[in-house]
Amino acid sequence: MKAKPVFIGVIGGSEVTPPEAKLAEEVGREIARRGATLVCGGLGGVMEASCKGASEEGGTTIGILPGESRRAANPYVLIPIVTGIGHARNVAVVKSSQAVIAIDGSYGTLAEIGHALQSGIPVIGLGTWALSINGKADQSIITAKSPKEAVDKAFSKIENRK
Amino acid sequence: MKAKPVFIGVIGGSEVTPPEAKLAEEVGREIARRGATLVCGGLGGVMEASCKGASEEGGTTIGILPGESRRAANPYVLIPIVTGIGHARNVAVVKSSQAVIAIDGSYGTLAEIGHALQSGIPVIGLGTWALSINGKADQSIITAKSPKEAVDKAFSKIENRK
Amino acid sequence: MKAKPVFIGVIGGSEVTPPEAKLAEEVGREIARRGATLVCGGLGGVMEASCKGASEEGGTTIGILPGESRRAANPYVLIPIVTGIGHARNVAVVKSSQAVIAIDGSYGTLAEIGHALQSGIPVIGLGTWALSINGKADQSIITAKSPKEAVDKAFSKIENRK
Amino acid sequence: MKAKPVFIGVIGGSEVTPPEAKLAEEVGREIARRGATLVCGGLGGVMEASCKGASEEGGTTIGILPGESRRAANPYVLIPIVTGIGHARNVAVVKSSQAVIAIDGSYGTLAEIGHALQSGIPVIGLGTWALSINGKADQSIITAKSPKEAVDKAFSKIENRK
Repeated sequence: MKAKPVFIGVIGGSEVTPPEAKLAEEVGREIARRGATLVCGGLGGVMEASCKGASEEGGTTIGILPGESRRAANPYVLIPIVTGIGHARNVAVVKSSQAVIAIDGSYGTLAEIGHALQSGIPVIGLGTWALSINGKADQSIITAKSPKEAVDKAFSKIENRK
Repeated sequence: MKAKPVFIGVIGGSEVTPPEAKLAEEVGREIARRGATLVCGGLGGVMEASCKGASEEGGTTIGILPGESRRAANPYVLIPIVTGIGHARNVAVVKSSQAVIAIDGSYGTLAEIGHALQSGIPVIGLGTWALSINGKADQSIITAKSPKEAVDKAFSKIENRK
Repeated sequence: MKAKPVFIGVIGGSEVTPPEAKLAEEVGREIARRGATLVCGGLGGVMEASCKGASEEGGTTIGILPGESRRAANPYVLIPIVTGIGHARNVAVVKSSQAVIAIDGSYGTLAEIGHALQSGIPVIGLGTWALSINGKADQSIITAKSPKEAVDKAFSKIENRK
Repeated sequence: MKAKPVFIGVIGGSEVTPPEAKLAEEVGREIARRGATLVCGGLGGVMEASCKGASEEGGTTIGILPGESRRAANPYVLIPIVTGIGHARNVAVVKSSQAVIAIDGSYGTLAEIGHALQSGIPVIGLGTWALSINGKADQSIITAKSPKEAVDKAFSKIENRK
């Protein structure tokens, strides 16, 4: 039987700036270099850039799609999961990951961060949302300054939970 | 045929402090007094307190439940919707509301705020999350200082979108 | 506080023949006459005809919608639940009902019958699917010959489970 | 980049008789021998037996789980997808498959057959439900007499749709 992989999620919106795309691609490369499987929402933007990076390093990429057709997946998704459940598929993206790396500031990413923290799944942030309540910062999102640091921290969090 | 009601969501966690419960109950009362139907996740905490308030004013309360049984609904839910889809039901709570009022700072509430903003549904905050990205505040959550102001703002936002 | 209603589901496809529409409308009327709330998928065909009947008798109708907009509901839905989860909303239609009445032979109706039987929810059939396995009939679907008999049997099953 | 696999679903309940388990295991073996990826609901019974067969032939197995934890997957699932959406995950199992092979007669399998036929996904039956309406048989389920014939027919249907 094949060895079970580690699953790392990459969350981010379907529209990206070129610097965000570059970050996402490098995160994908780093995930693949370390032998982990990349989980994402399967569409464009951050999702596509990270899948491209992982794919070019020979990695496995899973795209958990919102719609009814596998054809909506970006070309770098190896394993499309066709849910048909729309935005609710964000919950499955997060729960299928042992840690998630959040890139960018779309509201879909914010929802995914909420679902991850609610489920106790570590969230590493690379230029994403910062949260506060009643003037007090919430420190649950672990910040990273580079793609390599983000993937290092994701692995380290997963190791600690075993 | 009966007149179609306005639907206002109340989002907040299943654990509350007494002041949060009081806020939620008053929000529920105000929603019912103005003839709107309250939509929530149907369980305890903020959900129960707001349903209690609405119910005592003779209002209609909808609880969109995560689990498999209508028995999990709090006693003030008049119409239980049994989804069986777990946390993904948060998406339905938000999309079934024409505006949502967010009370408290649970991560489930954060996920619901993300889903609402992603879908263009107005979010009124009463002591809930504040968001920023790259040091810059995001002003999408409309703040209110009292239950009455929160419900006023929800109605005003719904009117403007007609 | 208002009295809690009984919830009866009506399941059937979005395309109907005139005799099926007439059956569905009469089922809706009978549900409303007996003070129960009608639950359905909220769209056209059997769903619309049954909501029309219930609505004309002053009943309450809930439409659990698959898409992203309350505007997709048929005009006789009083309470639209906007799930955004596509066909998976069929599960919520069934689980939100204390008994379901199945009209017609669409594959969506077949899926709903499967979900209802899996969850132990009584299914009353009015001209719907018959099931067999290895040449042996499955008798789980309770057949009825008229709308009135179908609603009678639904109420009787709900009574027995209390 | 790795070559994209063909995805074949195996649907069946979590309780099986020994002959059903043997059929399911052989279906899994045959899917893996032909280089396809097996998709299932990830739990016991038919799901576990088919994953065991595929796994022992070196195949890839995807388990789309209903609950909140990857630990619920049977030991032969290589890629667990954690949805948290309960029975609604049946829709994702079916939509993520290019053809499905139905084994046994549980009501969950019936629901999956309904969802597959509704979505135009070919269903091959090995000792599963037969459907009729108003005394007339529905021939949409393609019957097979052996695991090999079932997998042959699944591949042949997928080829024809390209």
